Formats: sequence, C-alpha cells, structure tokens
Amino acid sequence: MTKKRELLILITNDDGIKAKGLKSLVNVVKPLGKIVVVSPFEVHSGMSHAITVKVPLRVKKTREEHNLTVYGCNGTPVDCVKLAFNQILPRKPDLLVAGINHGSNAAASIFYSGTMAAALEGCINEIPSVGISLVSHNPDADLSATEFYSKLIIEKIIENGLPKSICLNVNVPKISLEKIAGIKVCRQTKGYWQEEFEKRTDPQGNKYFWLTGKFHNSEPEAHDTDEWALDNNYVSIVPIQVDLTSYHTMREIKNWNFT
Amino acid sequence: MTKKRELLILITNDDGIKAKGLKSLVNVVKPLGKIVVVSPFEVHSGMSHAITVKVPLRVKKTREEHNLTVYGCNGTPVDCVKLAFNQILPRKPDLLVAGINHGSNAAASIFYSGTMAAALEGCINEIPSVGISLVSHNPDADLSATEFYSKLIIEKIIENGLPKSICLNVNVPKISLEKIAGIKVCRQTKGYWQEEFEKRTDPQGNKYFWLTGKFHNSEPEAHDTDEWALDNNYVSIVPIQVDLTSYHTMREIKNWNFT
Repeated sequence: MTKKRELLILITNDDGIKAKGLKSLVNVVKPLGKIVVVSPFEVHSGMSHAITVKVPLRVKKTREEHNLTVYGCNGTPVDCVKLAFNQILPRKPDLLVAGINHGSNAAASIFYSGTMAAALEGCINEIPSVGISLVSHNPDADLSATEFYSKLIIEKIIENGLPKSICLNVNVPKISLEKIAGIKVCRQTKGYWQEEFEKRTDPQGNKYFWLTGKFHNSEPEAHDTDEWALDNNYVSIVPIQVDLTSYHTMREIKNWNFT
Repeated sequence: MTKKRELLILITNDDGIKAKGLKSLVNVVKPLGKIVVVSPFEVHSGMSHAITVKVPLRVKKTREEHNLTVYGCNGTPVDCVKLAFNQILPRKPDLLVAGINHGSNAAASIFYSGTMAAALEGCINEIPSVGISLVSHNPDADLSATEFYSKLIIEKIIENGLPKSICLNVNVPKISLEKIAGIKVCRQTKGYWQEEFEKRTDPQGNKYFWLTGKFHNSEPEAHDTDEWALDNNYVSIVPIQVDLTSYHTMREIKNWNFT
C-alpha cells in the first residue's frame, strides 16, 4: 500500500488561478497524490474569511490531466474551499494547502489573509491544513526556496498529522535557499498595521483614500516570534487554533457582577 | 469629573448604516459619551476581516448633532475602523462597539462575521472592543432585550476595562427580555457550517450555486459553550483573543525532525 496513490490534496490560494505561487505549489504536491485545485479567477488578497452571499458562485474546470484537476471560481478563497468540500471533491481531502501566497502572512496579517482563511476553513472542517507564504509581493518572485521548504513541511504533516482544530501558518523569508538558516516553530508576533491612508482628490473635487500602511512589531526584542524568525533568515511555522476563546479572561469576567 | 463627558466611543456594524441594530446601539451608548459612528453604506455580512485594496475608500458625514456624528463609508467594517482610527477620530477611542448585528455570531460564525472582525480590529489596535449580535436575521427584529443587555455589558466594560488583546463576542437569544435567564460567560462552541449549496441553471444553461447551510454543533452536550447558553435562554459572552498561536502544538511540532 503506498500513501501516494491514496492521498487526495486540495489546493487553493488568494492570488488567483494564474498566480506563479499556485503553479509552484502544484509542482511541489503533484508527486504526493491526486491533486484538485479550486482557486479564485481573480486576485482576492485582503479578503480574509469573506464568503459570497450576494452573487451566485460559478465554477469552471480549466485543466484536467493525470492526477491533477484545476477549477476556477468567481468567489473568495473560503468560497473555493466550501465548494470543493461540498460540490467538487469525491470525498473529504486528506490535506489542504493554501498558497504559495505572494506576501507575508506573519503576525497580525493572518487576520486579513485569504490564504490563511482558506487554511482555517479546512481546519474548521477537520481537514489537516496549512497556508504557505513568501515574504515578497513580487508576482515573479523566485519561489525555489519556498518550494523546497513547502515540500519538507508538507511531507512532515503527512507523516505526523496535525492535532484537531489546529492548522499551520508557514512563512518563508525572501532570500535564496542557501541563505535560509532553517525552520523555527514560533508564536504569532504581537503588533498591528499602522495605516497611512493616502488622501487624494478626484476630478470632481471629492476626497478619497487608498489604504496603505506598514506593520508595527510591538515586541521587536522577543526571539520566539514569527517576525523575529523571518528577520533572522528562518522559515517560520506558527500553529494556529480555531478556538479563539481566552480561557483566562473567562475566569476574570465571571467575577464581574452582572446584576 | 464625570466619565460621561470624557468617553469617546466608536460604533460600527456590518449590516450597514441604515440597519435597525445600529440605531438601537446608538441609543444605548448615547448617554455614555461622545459617539462617532463609521459604518458601511451597504450591507457587508459575511465580509469577515476583509479590507479594500482594489478601490479607493470614500467617507461621507451623514448626520451631526450634540455628541453624535455619523459617517458612511463604501468599505468593509474593518475599513471603517481603520479610517476612523486614522482619519476621522480626534484621538484613540475609549471603546469600540460593533453591532447590533442582525444574526448570530456565536461559535464558528465569528470567522465569517464583519461585526466581530471590526471588534477584533479594535482589539488588535489596543482599544477595548465588543461585538454584539442578536440571534435573528429579521431586519425588523425586536431589539429591546438586546438593548438592555448591551447597556449592562458596555457599562461593565467601562467599569472594569478589558485585558489587552482580548475583545468580547456577545450574543443575545431571540426571546423577550422577561424570558432571558441571565448572562453566561462561556467558550466558543466547536462546530462548523454544513453547506448546502443550492444548484441552479441560468437561462444560458450554465450551472451556478447559492451558498446556504446550517451550523453543526460538534458538542451539543457541553454546557459551557455559547451555543448551549443561547439555546437555554442566556446571553452569551465569549472573551476572544487576538493571539491565535496554539502553544501546546508548538511544543509538539518542535519534536518533528526537520532535516
């Protein structure tokens, strides 16, 4: 019995079906099993866990070859995952991989990320799931180091499994393979995006804003965070949980007297 | 020195600026301080933590009276919060309240919710934040019980504060005030949405899907969850954390041999 023949792997992303990162990921996973890609037709960066309820969803098969079928969808990354689970795949997949995202999803970026939302959606549905991102927004970025580490990490997930309700957030620094120092298992960095809205005036004299900004690391000295790992040439892995409850705070709030 | 004059409270929602729940919430908080509302012009349900990067953001003041200013925005709930913090408010607000949402945001719904994303965005930016929802999608729902409990809980937050990086997810059952059994501080229920895509065919013969479905509670017997509380006539409060790291799994994955 070989694992390879049995594995059904769902691939998605948020940079859309034509992204270099998606093709790269397909090359990495193709030797591992039967691959089904369901990805947005368009770029869906910043879409987070959004679902489409106002317009109907459409799906189109765009490619079919031995052990690889590719579908495009007009929805968000999470819509793609839901459609895959419910309408496209013959059974629950053994693994969901989202990426390779063009841009970091470390620290608080996880909240805005369509890639990580897709991984979380897999995880909510009890599928071992991982999101993989390269810390570069360049659509033509060199993905060879990310491919190398994606393969390593995906094989480890297949070997060890993942605990229920936990998925992985993997980020790879924008350096060549030789310069990568290794893998660090770390925690999500505390911090936030400092927005710098670009204010402009349209030809009718109305003001408008473009959202821009940069990440503020609230704990630059900490050495166990994903931002530190990436800044120090490591691939970061943060295990992410679906249960957002703060149990510590539960105990605290129970002492408030609601009367 | 009165607290009332000093408090600056930011209000937003995802059902849009005309929603009954928003007006209801404004009535609740108006006696507590200076209120600024920044809400989407349109309904943004299911938008989660989405941000708008493809189109410019526009903001319009739609109402101004003593201690209340209302702005509409073409963006998502999270865009509204970012714009408020960076372009609209004179200083960091003392409190952010999102809601009153028309529909439950208990259990896994938190991931899809624009209301809770707005509260999380406040929390990421270190503002005490709470999202409030009524378990009814009826846009004309009776909000009097929700108003009563919103006032009680908001006053407790003002009195006690909230720990850093924690916000509250409040849900109110769809029953009259007299029937509510009280408040339960609880944890997020384990479960997922069972999608039932409605498959249709358009006049050109092409298939399309409408996303629909119902929540599957994976632990109906547990008595400490938000779903149980709501089913048993309690208002549920779940403290939610911004740090998604599973520390337990970190230790486990460190034992994988990445070689």
